[in-house]
Amino acid sequence: MTQNPTACLLVIGNEVLSGRTQDLNIKYLATRLGEIGIPLREVRVIPDVPETIIGTLNLVRAMFDHVFTTGGIGPTHDDITSECVSAAFGLPHEIHPEAYAKMAVGYAPGEFNAARQRMATMPRGATLIECAASRAPGFNIGNVHVMAGVPRIMQAQFEALAPTLAGGLPVISRAVHATGALEGRIADGLAAVQGRYPQLDLGSYPYYREGGNGVAIVAKGTDAIAAEAAIREVTVLFGELGYTPKQGEPPAA
Amino acid sequence: MTQNPTACLLVIGNEVLSGRTQDLNIKYLATRLGEIGIPLREVRVIPDVPETIIGTLNLVRAMFDHVFTTGGIGPTHDDITSECVSAAFGLPHEIHPEAYAKMAVGYAPGEFNAARQRMATMPRGATLIECAASRAPGFNIGNVHVMAGVPRIMQAQFEALAPTLAGGLPVISRAVHATGALEGRIADGLAAVQGRYPQLDLGSYPYYREGGNGVAIVAKGTDAIAAEAAIREVTVLFGELGYTPKQGEPPAA
Repeated sequence: MTQNPTACLLVIGNEVLSGRTQDLNIKYLATRLGEIGIPLREVRVIPDVPETIIGTLNLVRAMFDHVFTTGGIGPTHDDITSECVSAAFGLPHEIHPEAYAKMAVGYAPGEFNAARQRMATMPRGATLIECAASRAPGFNIGNVHVMAGVPRIMQAQFEALAPTLAGGLPVISRAVHATGALEGRIADGLAAVQGRYPQLDLGSYPYYREGGNGVAIVAKGTDAIAAEAAIREVTVLFGELGYTPKQGEPPAA
Repeated sequence: MTQNPTACLLVIGNEVLSGRTQDLNIKYLATRLGEIGIPLREVRVIPDVPETIIGTLNLVRAMFDHVFTTGGIGPTHDDITSECVSAAFGLPHEIHPEAYAKMAVGYAPGEFNAARQRMATMPRGATLIECAASRAPGFNIGNVHVMAGVPRIMQAQFEALAPTLAGGLPVISRAVHATGALEGRIADGLAAVQGRYPQLDLGSYPYYREGGNGVAIVAKGTDAIAAEAAIREVTVLFGELGYTPKQGEPPAA
């Protein structure tokens, strides 16, 4: 995976840090970014504090090929992501004429007020990320992609954006699981398999189900042939230890 | 909230960054840490890469009063959190006699193998975090609290740990919501309320329900009287704009 471009996600919002909101964007973006070959390497959840947003953005946009942000692009006072992105890039924060024109036609006379116009205000030179799910666009500037926090809107914006991103090899996943298996009994054999496939990430994940607890082993990487071979070896290992392996992930809890 | 001790959470694990696993630990810890007055200020989700874990730990343990980690303390090769914590602190990574003795009695002869003994191996001087949910303990060293990734076990470990942490004032929350409300119409009035209560975080969160979309306004802080007063003002604001406000958060989706 080392040749693939890398991604970092900034989840911006007090509501996740306070426990008010269960984040659903990390899993969606992690999955989709893997599929398009831009694996997610780090996530930071940060508060609605300008210095924190600006400082973090400038750090991570230098460390990763792509930075995705979710949250903070609505019309209220706690929506400060766009102005922080402008500040981070040192760009004028101004009305985006195309965003303004498109948004203006959607409102009744007098309803496109100052708060709503904030959603058409962006760093100069931003490219819009538009989708049917929201009147207010996301945007892209440099390697930073700014999206909504509402999962339904974020997903539509990401899917509009995805075809424009030059990804690498897709990250694929192969799995095997065995109910009754114990991590402490497979650990040695599993480490040996990992040693033979250094190009893969071999993960061991206990699961807890009504029908019985067990362990799932997941091989991830860009080399599908290696992933299948590694999972075959783990399947043999499970059998040798007296477990009954089944291909794939365990059924959902 | 500025006098309260602060917390950072490191979610350690490729499975969250790959989208394989939906994280549930952030919300739990965010909620509970607020309740005990150690508000969560940042979360980082990082991969099972030693340099990343060690480097991140050393950064955040200097920035925050408390660092909590979840994940990577099992018996398999991908469980490297404990050894990284030892490396970050520059401490010997060795068998913890008490953890070893307690774990050893739980296994049949010959079953307390090298892989399982890794779960009793910690930075020298660590204090155990024990709970009924798991034979293998978490541990505490300095201001770093190391816990399991499995939510059920993590929660039990946190609840065992919580009474030992000196918290500040609890972060409380008051809310009001109105179905039919639009953020773009309440934004100006809401910003004025926020301006009158600088000690609070006033958040505006759209919701989408079968019974109608709307907006919830949440006031968070350590000053309950201010939070109640602010929410009363927002309630009046909703009414002035022709909405029908209801106290509290909207019903679950």
